[in-house]
Order: sequence, then C-alpha cells, then structure tokens
Amino acid sequence: MSEARGDEQVQTVSYLQLVDLLRRIFLEHGTSPDVARVLSENCASAQRDGSDSHGIFRIPGYLSSLASGWVDGQAVPVVEDVADAFIRVDAANGFAQPALAAARSRLIEKVRKAGIAILAIRNSHHFAALWPDVEPFAREGLVALSLVNSMTCVVPHGAEKPLFGTNPIAFAAPRADGDPIVFDLATSAIAHGDVQIAAREGRMLPAGMGVDRSGKPTEDPRAILDGGALLPFGGHKGSALSMMVELLAAGLTGGHFSFEFDWSRHPGAQTPWTGQLLIVIDPDRGAGQSFAQRSEELVRQLHGAGQSRMPGERRYARRVQSLSVGIDIPLHDWQRLQALAGG
Amino acid sequence: MSEARGDEQVQTVSYLQLVDLLRRIFLEHGTSPDVARVLSENCASAQRDGSDSHGIFRIPGYLSSLASGWVDGQAVPVVEDVADAFIRVDAANGFAQPALAAARSRLIEKVRKAGIAILAIRNSHHFAALWPDVEPFAREGLVALSLVNSMTCVVPHGAEKPLFGTNPIAFAAPRADGDPIVFDLATSAIAHGDVQIAAREGRMLPAGMGVDRSGKPTEDPRAILDGGALLPFGGHKGSALSMMVELLAAGLTGGHFSFEFDWSRHPGAQTPWTGQLLIVIDPDRGAGQSFAQRSEELVRQLHGAGQSRMPGERRYARRVQSLSVGIDIPLHDWQRLQALAGG
Repeated sequence: MSEARGDEQVQTVSYLQLVDLLRRIFLEHGTSPDVARVLSENCASAQRDGSDSHGIFRIPGYLSSLASGWVDGQAVPVVEDVADAFIRVDAANGFAQPALAAARSRLIEKVRKAGIAILAIRNSHHFAALWPDVEPFAREGLVALSLVNSMTCVVPHGAEKPLFGTNPIAFAAPRADGDPIVFDLATSAIAHGDVQIAAREGRMLPAGMGVDRSGKPTEDPRAILDGGALLPFGGHKGSALSMMVELLAAGLTGGHFSFEFDWSRHPGAQTPWTGQLLIVIDPDRGAGQSFAQRSEELVRQLHGAGQSRMPGERRYARRVQSLSVGIDIPLHDWQRLQALAGG
Repeated sequence: MSEARGDEQVQTVSYLQLVDLLRRIFLEHGTSPDVARVLSENCASAQRDGSDSHGIFRIPGYLSSLASGWVDGQAVPVVEDVADAFIRVDAANGFAQPALAAARSRLIEKVRKAGIAILAIRNSHHFAALWPDVEPFAREGLVALSLVNSMTCVVPHGAEKPLFGTNPIAFAAPRADGDPIVFDLATSAIAHGDVQIAAREGRMLPAGMGVDRSGKPTEDPRAILDGGALLPFGGHKGSALSMMVELLAAGLTGGHFSFEFDWSRHPGAQTPWTGQLLIVIDPDRGAGQSFAQRSEELVRQLHGAGQSRMPGERRYARRVQSLSVGIDIPLHDWQRLQALAGG
C-alpha cells in the first residue's frame, strides 16, 4: 500500500516484507544465503525500530563494499573453542553478525556453565547498529556488553589527528516487568551515520561534535566528512573509553585497529575491517537472587527520580508501532530497493 | 626531614614510612591487621601517585566511619567459588579491598584456565581510588575492568533528583614496553573528592559539574555539597554508563544500589555500602598473538597522532619521583597523622 504523507509518498510494508526484500537484495549482490538472512534481519530491525542511520540507509554502502571485493559476502566464519569461557571466531573477512550467529549457542552454553564467557571476533566487518547484537542475550536473562571498533575518524582527546573509530559500546540487561534495558552509544560525540544524514539533509550540527580538515571546530557536517574528523564524547573520559574499545575489540581479538586497514585499492569500500568483543554474564550467579527483579527496582527508582524513559524504550515504542501498523518507507526508496533486488 | 616549601612546612617521607604510619592509624582505630595492611598500602599508594583526593585526605573519613560502627574494620570476607569463571565475595560489611585481596589468587587461576573470570563483591564499602584494584592485574599480563557504585549524588540525565553515585569505571591493560595503560574515571562530571577539595580550598568549579539544592546549575562546590548534586559526564551517554555501573556493581553482585542504604543512624559514616564488580581477561587467548605488543602499537600511534600522555602516566611519573626523593606531606598533616596513630 502506498499513500501520500505530507508531500512525500510512502510505502507501508510489514517487517517481514522488508526482511524478504533486503534478503533478496543481498542474495542478488553475491552474499551466501546465511549472510543474506542475518544481514537482512539486522538491517530491517534497525529500520523497524527507528534506527534510521542503520536501516535501509546503509544498503548502498553494503552493496558498494560487496561490489568492491573488500568484504567477502560468502565468508564462512571459523569458530574456535579456546577455553572454558573463551570463544574466538575468525570471520574470514566477512561480516561480524554471521560470525556472532555462528558462535552464539555455544557462547550461551559457556555462560550458563561458567557464569561468564567472552567472544572475540576478528577479521570482521561491522556496518550495523550494535544493540541488535546484545538485546537477544538480555531476552534470555543474561547481561551482555559488546564493543566494536571502526575506522579512523575521531581525534583522541589531547591529540591533533584522528585515530580512533566511532567505537560504540552496547549493553543489555534483563528486567522483570519490561523489555530489556539496552543502550548503544558511540564513544564519538556523534555517530558517523548521523553526520552523513545531517549532510544529506543540509542540517548543521550542535557545537562540539567535530573539526574540519584543518582541525578547527565546525558545525558543518560536510566539513567533517570532507577531510575533517569527529571528537570523542565527554572529553578525556570518552576518549579513554574509545581507546579501551580499540584495545578490546581489536587488540585483544586479533582484529585490525581503526587505523590499520587500507581500502584505497577497493574503491567503493565502506565497511570497517576490524574486530568485535562480546562479554556475556549470567547475572543470577552474583548473589543467588533475581537480577531482573533488581534491575526492575532500579527502573522504578529512575522513574521516581523523574527519568521518564529508559535506554531502549524509544526503539521498543517504535517497534510496537511498526509491527502493528507497518513500516513507512519513502516510495522512491522502496522502488529503489525493489530495483536492487532485481525487480 | 621537614623543610619549608613556599610558605608551607612539609615533611618528606618514604612510601614505606607512610604505609607504616597509616597501618598503625588503622590498627589504633580498631581494624584487623589484614584490613590495616590492605588499606594502608592502598591509601599510601594514592598519596605516592598524586591521587590527592584518595590519599591521606581520606583518613578522617575512614576513621569517622569506623568510629560510627557503620563499617566493620574486623570483617573477614567470605569467598565463594560459584562456577568455572565466577567468584563472589561477601565482604561482611567490611571494606572492598580486603575482599578483593582474599579472592585475588583464585580469580587469577580462573582467568588463566577459563580465559576470563568475574569477581562479584557485595556487602562492601569502597572509599578509595579504583585504579589500584586493576593495575596489578595488568602487571601480570591480564586485562582488568572494574566498576563500583557509591552513594546517591548524581542526577541521571533527564531526571530531576539525584539517584546514582559517582560510579567510577577503571580499566587496566598491559603494554610490552611501558607501564600498563590504566584509567579510572568517575561517570560523574567530577569526582566527589575533587568537589570536597575545591570547597576546602575555596575554588570555584568549571560549568556543567553540578546543581544546587534547587536543581539549578552552579559552579560553587559548597552549593553542590550543601544539598546539591553532581551531573553525569557527557550527558545521556555518561548517564547510561553510570546506570550500567549500578546494574553491574550492585544489581548483579547482590550489593546495595547507591540509593539503598541509610546511614542516618550512624552519624559520621562516610563510606558507601554497595558492591563492586571485576572482570579479568587473559588477552593472549584472543588470537594467539601478544596483546602487549598490540597495545604498544596503539600507544605508538597515539603518540604519533599527538597525544603526548597515556592514561596513568601522570601517576607513574609522580610515583617514580615519590619513590626516589620521597613524598612531601604538609607538616601539620603529618603531625595530625602521627597523633592519630597514638603518637
């Protein structure tokens, strides 16, 4: 169904219709069925939940990277069981999400048995939001923390040149009476996708987000994208956390640091070739009590202190709406996606 | 040796002299020899390394809390081996550092075998800097992350009333050719001890650190201490991290949230009665390569990008100075400490 909304024609589609179309697009552009399934669900979930900078907006970047030969859409991840609580995966120059999917059930087994376990993914491309990687663990009663580094675009605090990626940290924890508490925050002052969207829409950014190519502060997203760089959030503290992400997501996993890969021989490449770390904990081992009851108490107190919305709740509200009345996609975007799927 | 420096008389003492004096003070005020040993080394280390807000400045708070009966200076921590990679400790209403010390060797054994392990301390008081808890792991080639919650004094982003503690996050990682990379950052915009020091010295604070008792922004440290509150660092992102600290350091361990304890019946009590989490990883399991070589490469690149100092380096420089020429203590402070030790 397509209808006019404001002066923009939109197509309203179901989540499953969107997944199916994206799956066909990935297949059409050379990924394996497994990779197409994982990436299409991931990307459609972001669109469904209103994570616009990681939804269908990303499709051209995925396809351009695949076409460039930079990332292997047919990669088969190699899972290695290293120790009682340690799994590592060589993503084989493929995407990180299929690598996580391949290790996920064994990771959960280890967490249930050992109380905590770690998954170190290397040789992987992460081009998506990070919250979809952690939320499912919280839905099984577990606590999950994930870090992923990306590509050099952030000037470390006190430095003169960019070195770090936007290096997000995502966290998920179960609640007794509600959807999990989930946050996914870039350690840059702003996510790179949001700079791209602002540039596309011709909007200026708030102060403190980035610098231009000469290192001067700027509010122009185009100046940031044109040889400029982002700043870390929260000054030296955000910068320290971004450094920790480099150390854990790349240094520890065996992946590349954000400054270590060179895609200049693959024009069109956009997916950072780095690493990802997940730490998953069985929180009920802590003191023999229900963690979910305790987190629910924290939520109650936060509401009492005047914080109306918990991290993740905006996405959940949008999700409910998308699943009941469908997802509105601008008609020209929908038609472009159909064309990419081969008509 | 005492000498005049500027217009202030100082006493220059060795690290071991300071440890010994502090140990005698703790013993004189009713702690067990084990607790006195751990706390005196911790507090003297902070003074040695220039962490002024966690050095001898804290002694009156320790003694006042002990005298109030709020914290048990004779507590014997109970260590429970819960799973292959999970240890929990009931600190028995004592300090957190002796609880960590009691579990430390078993924790390292588990990390070496399982690749990662978690230590959940509950029923504990943490009144010290957090970096001394993680740095020693990095000196054994391990990566350590620790979180501790404290007492309500931070207004969550979007809320109207304080709920969180200053809730620091500390991280330590080994380097091949240098002292470990160590940071210890309050998730509040400023550490509570630094507000106390500014108030004592009559200095104003930078903007954005806190609010007064009516919730209005203030730069006056006394207005913050007099019924006001701190703000999180970095807006909603720092606030999300502070919430994560509550969930992991208290919710998961079985400790108290920062808002859950009531010391009103123990006048003089100052030590937050909460919990602490440590996650320790064997980083060389990640990809069969030397993590310390990789972190050294990151440091090289950070220097190349213009970041002259790594997190922790200011402390190390001060430590070297303190260990070679001694630690300068204002004479009146030194005399007061001697009096507290019973002369």
